[in-house]
Parts: sequence; C-alpha cells; structure tokens
Amino acid sequence: MKARILVTLKSGVLDPQGKAIESALKSLGVNGIASVRQGKVFDIELDAADKTKAEAKLKEAAETLLANMVIENYRVDILS
Amino acid sequence: MKARILVTLKSGVLDPQGKAIESALKSLGVNGIASVRQGKVFDIELDAADKTKAEAKLKEAAETLLANMVIENYRVDILS
Repeated sequence: MKARILVTLKSGVLDPQGKAIESALKSLGVNGIASVRQGKVFDIELDAADKTKAEAKLKEAAETLLANMVIENYRVDILS
Repeated sequence: MKARILVTLKSGVLDPQGKAIESALKSLGVNGIASVRQGKVFDIELDAADKTKAEAKLKEAAETLLANMVIENYRVDILS
C-alpha cells in the first residue's frame, strides 16, 4: 500500500525558510509570489491488511516521529 | 491564488534521509513500513490573473530555485 504524509507548519508559526525562498525568488526575477511556506512530504510504502489499519499505522508514524505536534500539522493520504 | 509544489527525488536516486526515517520508525516500534522517501512541499500564494499564467510562474519558480532538475521531479497543483 502506498501513502503520502504531508507535514506543514501550523498557521501563525514563523517560517524563516519560506521567507528566504520568497526573497530568493524575488531576486531571481520571479515576481508575483506573495508568500511561501515550506513543509515536508513523506512517500511511504507499507504492508497493511486494510486501509483502516494502514491509516492507524501512518498516524502513529506521523505523531511519534515525522511531525512535531506543537508547531506542525500533518495529513495522511492513502494513494493505492 | 493558492498553489502547492511537491518536489520529490527521482526514482533511482538514493535517499539516505528516507532510509534513516525508516530505521528510526523501526526502532520506535512502528512496524510494517516497507520504505520511506522524503521530499519537500511548498505552499505558495501568488498574484496571477489566471490559472495558465499562475502555472507558468510556478513552473519557473520550481525550475529556477525549488527543484534540482538533475535529481528531483516536481509537481504543481493549483488549489484555489
């Protein structure tokens, strides 16, 4: 089973990396970009009998390791 | 206009960070994970008259700065 976990900063949390990308794009001549926020994506292959079990396992993975629940949100998508 | 750019490693390119996450999950007791590959996600707000112009601008941003076209693929999604 293939899945994707998206980890993004909660709104209100400062994102200096996103700000740096924003200014870099401006200096490279790419205009019209109002804001950039960077996050992480994890493409995961897992062995699970069904979708419910896979989702539970992915939730566990996200909360124990992949996302910092204080400042980040995550979203789990089962792809196939 | 809101958009999301996903940058992932091309298949065949080694991903040591993904491998490290895989072993970390195993040692934390999250079993059944066969493989992990990490990528980046950029949530972008931009000023563009229409979808075509927005896509062109995002493509430019991805190719000039966000993705290393030698080892990475990118995907642009217009969210709203």
